[in-house]
Amino acid sequence: MTTTVSSVGIGLLGCGTVGGSFVELLAERREEIARRTGVTLELVAVSVRDTTKNRPGVSDDIIVADPMAVIANPDVQLVVETMGGVEGTLDLVEAALSAGKAVVTANKALLAAHGVRLHDAAAEAGVDLALEASVAAGIPLIRPLRESLVGEDITRVMGILNGTTNFILSQMAEHGANYLDALAEAQRLGFAEADPTADVEGHDAGAKAAILASLAFGCAVTADDVHTEGISSITAEDIALAARLGYVIKLLGIVERHDDGSVAARVHPAMVGSDHPLATVRDSFNAVFVEGTGVDQLMFYGRGAGGHPTAAMVLGDVIDAATNLASGTARAVGPLPPATIRSIDELRSAYYVALDARDEPGVLAAIAHAFGERGVSIRSMEQEGLGDQARLIFITHLAVESDLQATLDDLRSLDAVKNIGQVLRVIGS
Amino acid sequence: MTTTVSSVGIGLLGCGTVGGSFVELLAERREEIARRTGVTLELVAVSVRDTTKNRPGVSDDIIVADPMAVIANPDVQLVVETMGGVEGTLDLVEAALSAGKAVVTANKALLAAHGVRLHDAAAEAGVDLALEASVAAGIPLIRPLRESLVGEDITRVMGILNGTTNFILSQMAEHGANYLDALAEAQRLGFAEADPTADVEGHDAGAKAAILASLAFGCAVTADDVHTEGISSITAEDIALAARLGYVIKLLGIVERHDDGSVAARVHPAMVGSDHPLATVRDSFNAVFVEGTGVDQLMFYGRGAGGHPTAAMVLGDVIDAATNLASGTARAVGPLPPATIRSIDELRSAYYVALDARDEPGVLAAIAHAFGERGVSIRSMEQEGLGDQARLIFITHLAVESDLQATLDDLRSLDAVKNIGQVLRVIGS
Repeated sequence: MTTTVSSVGIGLLGCGTVGGSFVELLAERREEIARRTGVTLELVAVSVRDTTKNRPGVSDDIIVADPMAVIANPDVQLVVETMGGVEGTLDLVEAALSAGKAVVTANKALLAAHGVRLHDAAAEAGVDLALEASVAAGIPLIRPLRESLVGEDITRVMGILNGTTNFILSQMAEHGANYLDALAEAQRLGFAEADPTADVEGHDAGAKAAILASLAFGCAVTADDVHTEGISSITAEDIALAARLGYVIKLLGIVERHDDGSVAARVHPAMVGSDHPLATVRDSFNAVFVEGTGVDQLMFYGRGAGGHPTAAMVLGDVIDAATNLASGTARAVGPLPPATIRSIDELRSAYYVALDARDEPGVLAAIAHAFGERGVSIRSMEQEGLGDQARLIFITHLAVESDLQATLDDLRSLDAVKNIGQVLRVIGS
Repeated sequence: MTTTVSSVGIGLLGCGTVGGSFVELLAERREEIARRTGVTLELVAVSVRDTTKNRPGVSDDIIVADPMAVIANPDVQLVVETMGGVEGTLDLVEAALSAGKAVVTANKALLAAHGVRLHDAAAEAGVDLALEASVAAGIPLIRPLRESLVGEDITRVMGILNGTTNFILSQMAEHGANYLDALAEAQRLGFAEADPTADVEGHDAGAKAAILASLAFGCAVTADDVHTEGISSITAEDIALAARLGYVIKLLGIVERHDDGSVAARVHPAMVGSDHPLATVRDSFNAVFVEGTGVDQLMFYGRGAGGHPTAAMVLGDVIDAATNLASGTARAVGPLPPATIRSIDELRSAYYVALDARDEPGVLAAIAHAFGERGVSIRSMEQEGLGDQARLIFITHLAVESDLQATLDDLRSLDAVKNIGQVLRVIGS
């Protein structure tokens, strides 16, 4: 009960932006947490790469260079990993779990690559492995998926999982900026890294999609299982055209469970109807849309990154894990059996296809015939511009990805088609 | 650990829309829940008012008329209360808690009136009192507030907490319907009751605001502490004017914690900037916006009512409470000390004031003088219509509620002012 106060020793691996914010937040909230939960959180050891640097709020005598020393410290019952990276952290997290210490981590790359192994190690040791901050860092999302929704038949999770690309796309939509200028602005503001590949090519969102699929569907999905396309081919013109048709372009991570139990996981830019709740998520915010047979539709919205929001979720996990330690329990993720991954070729989606065609009689009939031959049914067609500048915009009904791709191949071989422009999947409202 | 399977006996009080959906969902998801959590949920007793009625999925031999018999049943370890009402249920829930049984309830009225007493009883008995479905019924919100955000310094929670009024306001905004027609449509569709008072006058949202304030700020706030205004005075013209100024009108429940520790809790219609995430919440959906010093801004969006969504959240609570029972723990809400409630008179807000004035020289100066005398600063003024039909629309900077009310009194006594129309608080983006 909350009147008995227990104390839990915390070891922190890494004290950068998130680690530093965590130290600050913990100091601020410690008394209130003890009052509300009956558990006092004590920071007892911190490992940092540079031990000579001043760390506000951390007394020198608890700073060490060797993260293994933090894990081995007998006063540490709970390890918070905010170092990042996969290679260096896998051994550390495994060592902590094997030593019977609860682990809280925000490390999406580690979890997307080795989640099954780490969840098994946690279950084996009977301790918590908590990962709220690994996906949509500042949003309490993982806990609801693991707990409130464990009784729910979740069919789809779909979200804006990467703040950098959402910032870039928002800049393009709201200021008509082109991709490279918007990227440069994101870099100037610190939202994008000097090498933006992981963000703009969808790898970061892919790792998060893998974690979401694993927890939502209770099976093992890794980053390699996620079909990934980025946003670097999106132009200001694509975005303007989308707006005219009532859509916004968003980079989405989508994971779906099919009736046969197979799982589809993909990250790609998509046209989202402007009345869909995801359409209004701007700047570097993240949002995750969940569909289930019981709950219908849910959305979780908030900061996807940043020291303070991430640290707030890490602290939530720490309180939870500490409370569990104090009461001698743990909340393991159930065993994660292998997932059957469905190929992107089997996707059923509506599509947006922009193409440049010759302005001649019979051209539209030839193009429509190419769609029809592959069983891809056209919902709407619009012509933008006139004469040789004419661009045709098709939106299809639901079609199978492999049929759409075959249609595109057929269209490329038509004399009437000069060029195929942007092809995007369309998400309904 | 999840490989050891324990069994937990469930007693259900009431088997109406939510109770019936819960029975259905439990049957569907039982095996998957056991696989994921190691806990098998067994429905062992159900009390209903009419024992002669057929209850799909419930075998006759577990149906009883007396809810107390369900609570006394030694095979029942966890009681799910879906009867509703305050008078009849208070004794039942207290009896269940005293008997050491965990309780899951969606009963907002009960919790808003007697939450402190019930949380104390749960803490005393060392069992869970879970209430996810009591606010924004189909949205996992209470658990994040109690757990993920317990380390967070929450400053404000603001939401669309009532689906009926949101449906009515959406109908008015999207179809230009007047209030009574929109209400009749809501009644026809089953979103509003024959006597809609509890919804349209804000009492339902007020009970939910009280629960949110208690959990967000860790102190005792009851429905009586909530300043409540409804939507029945909102006209189609108000909504059209708001739209022209870039706002939508929403019925909001808002709870705030001030630096001096005092708590303000209110429900009223408000002008919400159309780029605010709450502005896009349509139909009978609910959404709750949370602001904190660490997380910045969060929003939770989903169904606010309905048998299936509510039952899904009840089931989430049941799984959680059952897992706690199986591991011999409980998650009590910390003690809830009395709150210091801040009067609505002390509110600082921007205001929208519509008034009809005579079309004479010097009128605007007299009106502006009345605002200025009370220290209420005007941000914008627009005139709608011409001559004797002219209506003046003022939006103020932040002002104190008592000053604004005094200004309104002063304006009413001016000869130049024929009539004061709608006065609404304005929520920024």
